Amino acid sequence: MAKPDAGKDRAYMDHALRLAARGLGRTRPNPTVGCVIVKEDRIIGRGWHRKAGGPHAEVEALRMAGEAARGATAYVTLEPCSHHGRTPPCCEGLIKAGIRRVVAAMEDPNPLVSGQGFQRLKQAGVVVQVGVREEAAQMLIRPFITRILHNRPMVTLKSAASLDGKTATRERHSQWITGEAARKRGHRLRDTHDVILTGIQTVLADDPRLTCRLKGGRDPIRVVVDSSLKLSENAGVINPDSTAPVWVATTLRAPEEKRALFALLPGVEVIMCAEDDTGRVDLYDLMEKLAKREITSVLAEAGGVLSGALLDKRLVDRIALFMAPMLIGGREASGILDSLGAAKLTEAPRLDHVTLTSLDGDLLVEGCVVYGATEG
Amino acid sequence: MAKPDAGKDRAYMDHALRLAARGLGRTRPNPTVGCVIVKEDRIIGRGWHRKAGGPHAEVEALRMAGEAARGATAYVTLEPCSHHGRTPPCCEGLIKAGIRRVVAAMEDPNPLVSGQGFQRLKQAGVVVQVGVREEAAQMLIRPFITRILHNRPMVTLKSAASLDGKTATRERHSQWITGEAARKRGHRLRDTHDVILTGIQTVLADDPRLTCRLKGGRDPIRVVVDSSLKLSENAGVINPDSTAPVWVATTLRAPEEKRALFALLPGVEVIMCAEDDTGRVDLYDLMEKLAKREITSVLAEAGGVLSGALLDKRLVDRIALFMAPMLIGGREASGILDSLGAAKLTEAPRLDHVTLTSLDGDLLVEGCVVYGATEG
Repeated sequence: MAKPDAGKDRAYMDHALRLAARGLGRTRPNPTVGCVIVKEDRIIGRGWHRKAGGPHAEVEALRMAGEAARGATAYVTLEPCSHHGRTPPCCEGLIKAGIRRVVAAMEDPNPLVSGQGFQRLKQAGVVVQVGVREEAAQMLIRPFITRILHNRPMVTLKSAASLDGKTATRERHSQWITGEAARKRGHRLRDTHDVILTGIQTVLADDPRLTCRLKGGRDPIRVVVDSSLKLSENAGVINPDSTAPVWVATTLRAPEEKRALFALLPGVEVIMCAEDDTGRVDLYDLMEKLAKREITSVLAEAGGVLSGALLDKRLVDRIALFMAPMLIGGREASGILDSLGAAKLTEAPRLDHVTLTSLDGDLLVEGCVVYGATEG
Repeated sequence: MAKPDAGKDRAYMDHALRLAARGLGRTRPNPTVGCVIVKEDRIIGRGWHRKAGGPHAEVEALRMAGEAARGATAYVTLEPCSHHGRTPPCCEGLIKAGIRRVVAAMEDPNPLVSGQGFQRLKQAGVVVQVGVREEAAQMLIRPFITRILHNRPMVTLKSAASLDGKTATRERHSQWITGEAARKRGHRLRDTHDVILTGIQTVLADDPRLTCRLKGGRDPIRVVVDSSLKLSENAGVINPDSTAPVWVATTLRAPEEKRALFALLPGVEVIMCAEDDTGRVDLYDLMEKLAKREITSVLAEAGGVLSGALLDKRLVDRIALFMAPMLIGGREASGILDSLGAAKLTEAPRLDHVTLTSLDGDLLVEGCVVYGATEG
């Protein structure tokens, strides 16, 4: 076995992380995992977890490496499992294949099993190294972690606005604020999230289909927040060429007949939620119900009211804000957030780990939300 | 003389442009100009135009180079003058000093004299090359060009906002949205503009001094748009430790007594402007009056109403938008533009030549404004 080289370790782990990312939106409720097997500076096996119930990343990679795995190093984005789940434990597979060294980005975040995989490997004489590209790996499985730790999915708020924060003109003209490249990136976000969430106001105003129009992409489950069930059975979100279901989150305020009608529509499910103190769908309750349905990631593409409510309730974990280099203006024009908002600057949510991407003239600002102090 | 090298020519011109930029905000009504004299790959002379009436960039650079200028190349950001103005023509100086080659970024934009400098140089056997870094040079003297061609100063609209376009919280809390590095950059903008323009609402709400708090910086002339002269003689903008004057732009709606009082305050001047159809200072008239006073560049640091009015009237040439990575929210919170705004997206002003600068977590978006189609 060649001497470990920190630079090479990081490069191979990056490769494994890219493989893991291919599983985004497809592995719920499991985390996405990638694995690369390397011998004498050559990649001899690659794998990623493609869907829950399917083979784990390590199994795929070992299968590709075959006999050559003996004496090789395995790079995995997450601690290999040591317990029998839907598939046999990966640790045994790695040991049996003769892997000499395992480099992992991070421990299993589940406190019940974390560290056990590494222990099993070490017992079998495998060299173990943990923590290479740990931050990137943590970011990648944050949907999984959020569900485990907070009993709700991770929520990414997406919006497209002008530089002055307007999502439409005063005459509700909004197509298209951003250009082709930004819209394509938006579809990639749909492709990699379990659920796309929107409000009935957006559905009534724009009649979107909320599908992923990318080659090789897949549609997320469409969730419409609709407290009194104003949705029409002819809405674009209900009747497109999509195999992904539509879930309508409503309350007892919805007419019983209409609830019954919608429950019968193919591909449609009605989720009965508690009401909040304004009579709207209680968003905490909805998130809990989504977590129960094994949803780990939600992309909110909503108007200012729902976006603002999600943020005010501190349910937004991440922001993806597409900004077009234009100034729409208009005191009557819709903004990104139509909410109470912060009273003091210290209360305003801030972004952390911000990345800026230039998309053919448009700007994509992404970051993790850090909530400020509460007034009090 | 060494063979011309396009890469080196650009590098020396960049040097000359950086020198020219030192004159920003100090040379009105002249353009800023920089000059570098190079011989055998060494810079032997450097100069820039420091203020109107002072020596031109070429004169400064030739003075530094002395006898060594014989046979050298001069890089100038603007065509050298061939006419007698407040100083003798630079062309004669270059010829007399024995300069063999002149590389200029651009022609003189004044159609009455443009090309004459180059002609004079060629007549004297000097090799002339034009157009190196022309776009950057054009940008640098755009204030000068705007005044000559449009009879108004170039206006840069500056704002500091959250990612959702809010300049303050719903409780008017706005200090400080951006951090230290961004604020420093804001002061640099004040340093490099002839005038800083604001509205009486901002003065009444925030009582700003509108000075430049940078070492080596100088204060711009402070202009307050105040249609009915609500300004207090105790306002911070009137009584700071600043040698820069305050000009109050008002209309006949201002009480005559107060106009008389203000005209007597040291450092204060009242500019009587026409009223627009809402009874406010006619911004076109104000801009014309500023141009008459040899103002070439205006930095507008105003609230949403004045900023919006400037943009709706198509008087904004450039945007400098500082964005903090936070989301203030609040349907009642102030936005960057409080105006009628665009009806259709095609009407919305767009930015061109956009640059993004990261300032310690804050983002600076700069760009030139391109106005859209007007509604038919």
